[in-house]
Parts: sequence; C-alpha cells; structure tokens
Amino acid sequence: MLVIAAKRRPALGFRSDAIYGVRRSRLMKEPARTTLMEAEAREAPVVAARLVAKATPVLRDLGERLRGLSPRYALAAGRGSSDAAALLAKYLFEARLGLPTVSAAPSIRSIYGRQLNIEKALLLAISQSGRSPDLVEFCRSATGPDVLRVGLINDAASPLAEIMDVFVSLEAGPERSVAATKSCIAAMTLVFGLVAHWLDDGEMIAAFERSPEVLAKALMEDWRSAEAFFDRDGPVYVIGRGPGLAVAAEAALKLKETNGLHAEAVSAAEVRHGPFALAGPELRIVIFAQRDAAYEGFKKLADDLEKLGSPVLFISADGTRIGVRPDVEPVLELLAMLLRFYLLANATALRRGRSPDHPPTLTKVTETR
Amino acid sequence: MLVIAAKRRPALGFRSDAIYGVRRSRLMKEPARTTLMEAEAREAPVVAARLVAKATPVLRDLGERLRGLSPRYALAAGRGSSDAAALLAKYLFEARLGLPTVSAAPSIRSIYGRQLNIEKALLLAISQSGRSPDLVEFCRSATGPDVLRVGLINDAASPLAEIMDVFVSLEAGPERSVAATKSCIAAMTLVFGLVAHWLDDGEMIAAFERSPEVLAKALMEDWRSAEAFFDRDGPVYVIGRGPGLAVAAEAALKLKETNGLHAEAVSAAEVRHGPFALAGPELRIVIFAQRDAAYEGFKKLADDLEKLGSPVLFISADGTRIGVRPDVEPVLELLAMLLRFYLLANATALRRGRSPDHPPTLTKVTETR
Repeated sequence: MLVIAAKRRPALGFRSDAIYGVRRSRLMKEPARTTLMEAEAREAPVVAARLVAKATPVLRDLGERLRGLSPRYALAAGRGSSDAAALLAKYLFEARLGLPTVSAAPSIRSIYGRQLNIEKALLLAISQSGRSPDLVEFCRSATGPDVLRVGLINDAASPLAEIMDVFVSLEAGPERSVAATKSCIAAMTLVFGLVAHWLDDGEMIAAFERSPEVLAKALMEDWRSAEAFFDRDGPVYVIGRGPGLAVAAEAALKLKETNGLHAEAVSAAEVRHGPFALAGPELRIVIFAQRDAAYEGFKKLADDLEKLGSPVLFISADGTRIGVRPDVEPVLELLAMLLRFYLLANATALRRGRSPDHPPTLTKVTETR
Repeated sequence: MLVIAAKRRPALGFRSDAIYGVRRSRLMKEPARTTLMEAEAREAPVVAARLVAKATPVLRDLGERLRGLSPRYALAAGRGSSDAAALLAKYLFEARLGLPTVSAAPSIRSIYGRQLNIEKALLLAISQSGRSPDLVEFCRSATGPDVLRVGLINDAASPLAEIMDVFVSLEAGPERSVAATKSCIAAMTLVFGLVAHWLDDGEMIAAFERSPEVLAKALMEDWRSAEAFFDRDGPVYVIGRGPGLAVAAEAALKLKETNGLHAEAVSAAEVRHGPFALAGPELRIVIFAQRDAAYEGFKKLADDLEKLGSPVLFISADGTRIGVRPDVEPVLELLAMLLRFYLLANATALRRGRSPDHPPTLTKVTETR
C-alpha cells in the first residue's frame, strides 16, 4: 500500500483571493505548465464560495417547498460526470432522508418511447451543458401530479434549464476542458447543500458553508508521491461505497478520459461478487475511503487485495496515507478527495504524455439520443 | 468487425430430452471436455421449461395481485449476476409498465442503518443462494403499508426465501460452478414472465412460454469463430442499451470471473461521455444488439468504433454476424445471446488456460455486509 505522510505545501497556481488572499499572479507566471483542466479544477473553491453565497436562498426556499411536498420518491438524472453527481444524490436522498431514489434511464423515453407514471415525486436533473437531447426529452416527459422538476445546470440559457420548474445554477462559469472538474464538484456540493436545507439540518448546512475552505485546503495536499502509481498501462478498479461510489464513478471516468486507462468504478460490496477474480499484481486499486461506517470495510478490503498482490492507493483523511484534512462530514471529505484527485489525474496524464484538455475522440457537449 | 454466417450445427453435450428428444448420453461420452459451467449452462432450456410449467400459476396469481395493488414504484435488489437480473427488471418495469424502479443499494441499511420510507411499492429481490447478509437485511427492513416483497430465489430453504411475502423458485436445481449461468438465465426469464403476467399480455406470455425452445436453439449456434477474439489480454467494453445493458453487465462479469479479462459493461448512451477515449486497437468491443429501437444506434456505434481501430464483436439476430435465431421479442433474443455467450466464455477461458469452474479468489456464496 502506498503510504504517504500528508505533508502540507502551498498549492501551485490559482487559489481564491476571496478565501486566502493569495496572489493570482502566481498562475500567470507559469502559463506553459498549467492545463485548462488544472486551472478549472483550481477554481472549484471559488465556485463553491459563489454557491454558498448565491444558492443558499434558493436552496432554503427549495428545502421548505420539498418539506411541504413530501415526495414519495425521487428520480435523479445525468450523463457522464453529472451521472456521478446524480448517483451522489441517490445515496444522500436514501441514507439521509430515507427517500427511495430512481436512477433515471433516459432511453426509456428517447429510445423506447415510454412515459413513466410519476406522481408526488422529485425529479432532479444535473447537467453542465443542459443540452444532451435524451436527458432533455426525458425531463420534458417526466411530469405528473405534484411532480417537482429541479435542474442543477451550469448553462442558464440551455434547453434543459428552460423546461425545469426550478433552475439552480452550478455557478461554475465557462468550462472549456473536455474533462469536467469544477462543474462536477459544484453539482455534488449543490446536491449536498440541497439535502442539508431539505432536512434543515444545522450541522449539514454549516458543512455546506465551509465547503469552499475544505476544497481550498484539498488543493494544498501533497500527493506527488502518488503520481507514479498511474505510469504504466493496465486495469484499475476505483472502489467506493455509499456516497463514495459516486466519487469513484467520477474518478474512474476521469482516468479514462484524461489518462486513457481502463479504470472501472466498483462498489466495495460488489467487488467480491466476481470482480475479485482479477486481483493480483496487474490490477491496481484506488480506494476512496471516507471516514464513515464503511471505513473499517475499506481497510479490510485493502488488506485482502494487497495480500493477493494488487498495488493499492488508499485515499483517506486519517493522515497516514494520501488524503485530505479530516472533517466531521464524510461527504465533504469525499468532495475534497475528488478535487485533489483531479490534479493527480492531470499530473499523471502529463507524465503519460497525454493532453488532459484534449482527450482523443471526445467532445465537450455529448449529444446522446 | 467479426462477421460470421450463423451456421446451424447440433450442440455438443447436453440438451433437453423434453424439447428435442436428443440422447443425454452424448454428454456422458465427453466428461473430460465438459466443465461444470458448460454443463450447467446447457441445463438452462430445461430450467426454463420447469419455470414455464411450475411458475406460470404463481406468476398468474402474482400478476393479478400486482394489478390490484397498482404499486407506485418498484425496488429491485440483487448482488453479482442477480444484480444484472435486477437491472433487467428495472428496464422492463419502466419500459413496459411505466413503473419507476429503484435499484436497491443494500448498504443504505447494512452500513448506514437507514430504513427507506416505502409505501405501496413492489420490492423484487433476486438471489441464487438467498444468503448475502446485506441483501437479507435490506429486504427485512424494506417494509411499509402496501409493500409487496417478492423473491426470485433458487434456494427455497434460505433466509431470504423465508422473509419474503411471495417466494418464486428459480427452479435451477443445484448450481456448483462459481460462475452462475442457469440460475441467472432462470432469474431473467422469470423477470420477463412476471412482467408478461402482470400486463396479462398474450404475446409476452407466449414468448415466455417459448423461452425453453429459444434457449435450446441458442445452444446450437456456431460461434466457434469468435473464440479467438478473447485470446489476448487487454481492456474490453461490453455494450448494451435498455434491457441489453443488463445482459451486458452479466456478460462482463462472466468475462472477469472466468477469463480474468478486464471487461466492463458500458451503456451505449454513456460510452460517448468519456469511455470513448480508450477507443483504438487495444480496446475490444462486444455489443449485444437486440433488434429493437436501439438497433440502428448499435450499428452506428460499431462503425464509429471500428473506424477508430477497435475490434468489434457484434452479436445480433440479423443473421450476418454471430448471433441467435430471430424472435419477435427482443428480450428473448437477449436471453438467447447471453446463454450462448456463456458457452463462448467457457471455451475462451479454456483457451486462455483457466478453469472457468474455479476462478481465483472467488467463492460461490458471497457474504457482503
């Protein structure tokens, strides 16, 4: 297992003036060494600060409205990185609210022409561009009595933003790198804030409000010694459980997009039902180990996989391995880990001779039908 | 693209006496060449025949009861191969019934201690062993007013069978190979039969009743020329859409378990949102192309991936490539493709020098908590 003391060093490049008062000029001095992906990931704390400032009143109203509606269940919809944010919504709705949540399959509408029978439900759609035709069509058709359709969308002028009952801006600003970073962190932060205000839970609201600081600190973690982990080709499992499975899904997608690695997100529960067969020196393992009730299981799993020879990159907030500063809210730890992971993926892509901003064969707005 | 004329030849080994009157003795003559996995997969048509005979009255009653209950939504739960069957249930419930369906996350209960608020809903749990503790615990806690809990389970004496309101036997008999085959086909066939009887749809019921024949014919398809496709190591995407995504999930799991290949199931919709970055000669593609509204999209996707250099194994019922005999019901085609794929995976595992019956590090009953 790669064990790295969590040294603190100042982040290179851009950090939020609003939070730390650090000079932006540092970024300007190193233009050649900064990718769009890195620059945009480094904006995430400022984006979160904008969310706390601007989205809080929207979320407060929405929370009150949702408590009044008391939906029977929710549907969560997204594509690509936004699908990972939708998966986080599913886990938080279920684990914090006890609200059963359907992962929307847009093809039910766009391919099979069926309208779901929905009543007294929340539809949460998440999208950076707001332009994937199947998602737009699914949301347009997903109506019924007492159905509230909420969109967490970056582009306010998009078709998706237009058709939803409630539009909440991701406040991420223009995102030009094909690999989404700040917009995904924004969506996940908003999902957490939405649950916090829905529950009107003081501790969760306080956690939402310190997300800019937690994210900014994550950018300062020194993970350089983990960079060589991705130097070679070969299979990678990115393991998570509960809310961490959403972060694992996004991290695996990012390793595909930017590093050209076959990384697959695997639930810590499902890994023993088959995927374990690949365990051995060829299979590398990344574990996002938030410190909640799943934590002991992660340690046991890491030990078992290491005994079989698999190199393990164990990401946690316990201070003995690469990780982030601890927080009482494990979901914040996960968002911090994911943000720092973006910088890691950017660095390893460059080591592998790839441009993280221009993955082969991908475009920024993907239109699936 | 690997293009193979769909030649018909008699299957080697076991076929159903009940269906074809073929001598079982052929199996007995070739004991050394038959794995448990192959022998059990070849039982699938007989298992389906038992289901049609024995489960039909149960499904008829259950269909009537479900029409009376008219659940607002469903939850589908399973682990491993049974999770793939649960995913098929989600797609069929949504596309055929318009019923929103939650993919159950057992960790919500077993790790996070939360009970979902469920009312007027169907919980469908699928399991071969009926013994995974997290699944049992989830189903035990998933109760509420007008909640009907139905278990599709192979082991009638299991803890899961005991706690469900309605138990439907998979009728698969003992399954000894670690890699599930006949029990998964049985579960998927039952899911289809359940929807057929719920809708009281004559055409779907007729399709359910001819499943033994369709499966038996699939075993006779000649796919030998596809075996070399899996000779080398390296990444594999198994692509499906709609109900085919469930079959793709199971096929990818089987390639992991029995061939030690890193095969990942990818939705035909999601593949362009990131996973496309791996396209090229190193990445092999398997497409399960049932002939429904998704079919043209599969062909376009196969063309696009081949242009990027990826070898494509296109499985369909159109007769020009490896496939199965056409049926008006695309879900039956998918089950036939999956069953024939089991034999392919068995053969390629042997070519790769692996024992499909004894995958490294796996056990038959997996206990996740």
